Amino acid sequence: MALVWHTARRPSGELQDDDFALRDVPDLPLGEGEVRVRNTWLSVDPYVRGMLDDEGSYMPTMPLGSQVPGGAVGAVVESRDAGLPVGTRVLHDYGWRDSAALSAAQCRPIGPDEMPPQRFLGHLGMPGQTAYFGLLEVLEPRAGEVLFVSAAAGAVGTAVVQIARIKGLHVIASAGGSDKCALLKELGADVVIDRKAPGTMREKLAAAAPEGIDLYFDNVGGDHLDAALESARIGAKFSLCGMISGYGKGGVLELPDPMRLVVRQIRMRGFTAPEFEARRSLFEKDMLEWVLAGRMRSPETVLDGLGAMPEGLRAVLRGDNMGKLLIRL
Amino acid sequence: MALVWHTARRPSGELQDDDFALRDVPDLPLGEGEVRVRNTWLSVDPYVRGMLDDEGSYMPTMPLGSQVPGGAVGAVVESRDAGLPVGTRVLHDYGWRDSAALSAAQCRPIGPDEMPPQRFLGHLGMPGQTAYFGLLEVLEPRAGEVLFVSAAAGAVGTAVVQIARIKGLHVIASAGGSDKCALLKELGADVVIDRKAPGTMREKLAAAAPEGIDLYFDNVGGDHLDAALESARIGAKFSLCGMISGYGKGGVLELPDPMRLVVRQIRMRGFTAPEFEARRSLFEKDMLEWVLAGRMRSPETVLDGLGAMPEGLRAVLRGDNMGKLLIRL
Repeated sequence: MALVWHTARRPSGELQDDDFALRDVPDLPLGEGEVRVRNTWLSVDPYVRGMLDDEGSYMPTMPLGSQVPGGAVGAVVESRDAGLPVGTRVLHDYGWRDSAALSAAQCRPIGPDEMPPQRFLGHLGMPGQTAYFGLLEVLEPRAGEVLFVSAAAGAVGTAVVQIARIKGLHVIASAGGSDKCALLKELGADVVIDRKAPGTMREKLAAAAPEGIDLYFDNVGGDHLDAALESARIGAKFSLCGMISGYGKGGVLELPDPMRLVVRQIRMRGFTAPEFEARRSLFEKDMLEWVLAGRMRSPETVLDGLGAMPEGLRAVLRGDNMGKLLIRL
Repeated sequence: MALVWHTARRPSGELQDDDFALRDVPDLPLGEGEVRVRNTWLSVDPYVRGMLDDEGSYMPTMPLGSQVPGGAVGAVVESRDAGLPVGTRVLHDYGWRDSAALSAAQCRPIGPDEMPPQRFLGHLGMPGQTAYFGLLEVLEPRAGEVLFVSAAAGAVGTAVVQIARIKGLHVIASAGGSDKCALLKELGADVVIDRKAPGTMREKLAAAAPEGIDLYFDNVGGDHLDAALESARIGAKFSLCGMISGYGKGGVLELPDPMRLVVRQIRMRGFTAPEFEARRSLFEKDMLEWVLAGRMRSPETVLDGLGAMPEGLRAVLRGDNMGKLLIRL
C-alpha cells in the first residue's frame, strides 16, 4: 500500500486539512523497466495552491480526487530496471505520498552519496535552478550592480542572495521578521529590509538603495514590485519569478504610475525554471561546486511525517519557513 | 517680437485654454553662431500633458510661467551662422511659438527640399523614430509573427503598422471609431479592432488573434495591455511605448492575474526614442527610402494658427487625430 494525498474539497479561505484526504493506493506489481521508490523527503511548493481552485489561478486546476503533485527524493526498494538497482537514491515528481511505482525515465539518480538527499529538493533542485537561471540568464548581472531580491529567506531567495554575492553584486534582500533578516545577513546580504517593520516598501527600499537599483528578482509582486520600480535606475532589469502576494486571492496587481515602465526603460521578463532545462548541466556543475566548497548554505525548515503536508503548504504560503520547507518521512 | 505659449495655471479636469497664456517675448539681437527661425509647423505631443502638473506625472513638472516645449520646423530668417544661411529649413525643439532665436547646434537642417517639412515632425521625426526602434530593436520581429499594436491610428501607430507590413508581420491594429479603422485597413493592417465597438478588449483581441500574439506594441496600457497579456503566446515580447490611458489621471495600472507575466514568460520592455539616438541614421535612411517609394503613407490632422495649440493638445489627448496632429502657422 502507498499512502497518497488527494484533493478532497475546493478551499474556502485559508487551507484546511479537510481540503485534502490521505488515501491508500494499492501497490500494483511492477512492469519491466519500473521501480518502486520509498520516499524519504518531500517538497512543499507554493504553486500547488494555484492548482486547488481556479480563483486567480495560473496553473491548471486539478479535478477533485486528484493526487497532489510535488517533488520528492527517496530510495529504490524494488526494481525491474537494470540501471536503477535497489538502494539507488532518486529524485522524482511523485511527492505528497510515501511511495511510488515509477518508470525509470521518471527517476533521476542523485549524488554524490555524501550530499544530504533533501538538498536535491532545494538548492541542488528546482528552487536552486530557478535562482540560478533567473539571476544569471534573465538578469545578466555584472559585478558591482545593485540587486534587490524579495522574499529572500525562502528556498529560491536564499540561493539568489548567495549566487549574487559569489558574482560580486551588492545585494539588498527583503524578508518578513527579524529572524529571517538575521539569516539573510549571515548569508551575505549587504542590506536587509524587514517588510514587517514600520514604513512603506517604497520608503524602505529608497533608504536601502539611495542610488537606486540595477536589478530586481521578484518573488512577491504587489508593493515590492512597485517599490522596485520606484527605485529603478534607467534601463533596470526585472526578473519575475513569482508573485506570492497574489496566490489564491484572485490577485490583481495595482501599479501606480505605469509610465515609469516606459520612462525608466524597464526590461521585465517573466520566466519559469523549465525553460532553461537544456542548460541544466551548467547549473548542476556550478551549484554542486559551490555547495561542496561551503560557499552556498542551504537553510531548511523541516516538518515530520506525511500527515504534516497540508500544514506545510499553509506554512510556506504564510511565509513561515526559513529556507526550503521540507517534509521528512 | 515672438509669440510664445506659457503655462499659466495647473489644470483641473479637462485642459482649458486659460491653463496656458500666449505672451510676447522680445526679439533679442542674435549672437555669433545663432539664427532666428520662423516656425511654419508645430508638433503637439501628449507628453506635454504630463509636464503641466504632478498628478500621475512621469515627466518633470514645469513651473508656472514656463515656455511650453515641443518640436517645430521652420526656416532661418536671420543668421549669424555660416552653416545655416537664411532660407535653410530646420527642425528644432522650440515649438509652441511662432519664432525662436537658437544656436546652430539646436537646429537640424532637413531635406530633401521636395519633402513636405512637417513630415519631419511625423514619420521622418520623433514619432517615426519611436515606431522604428520600438518595433525593430525592442521587439526584434520575424516575418510571419503576429503583432498587436494599440492606438494604431496615431502618429506612432500609423508608422508601426506600415513598417510591420514591410517586414512581413501579420498586423492586428486597434483604434477608436470606424474612420480610424478604415484608415488602418488602407495602411495595410490585416485585422482591425475598434475599441469603441461592443465587447471587452479581451474578447475582441481573442477573436482577432485566435492563435494568440507574438508581439505587442503598447501605446495605451490599461485594458489593452491586459488583453495583450491574455492573448500572449509563451515568450511573447511587449514593447511599452506609451500609456495614453493613464495621462493626467494619476493613473494606476490594474493588471488581473499578474502571474501571467511569469507563466507566459513575457518579455516586456519600456523604451523611449532618445535611447536609440546613436543609431538614428539607420532610421533616417530606411524611412526616407520608404516614404519616397510610396510605401509609407503619412496621414495628418491639421489645425491652423498658433492659437489652436491648447485645442490641439486636448484633441491629441482625446485621440481625435488621425495620424500626426500638426499646427500650421
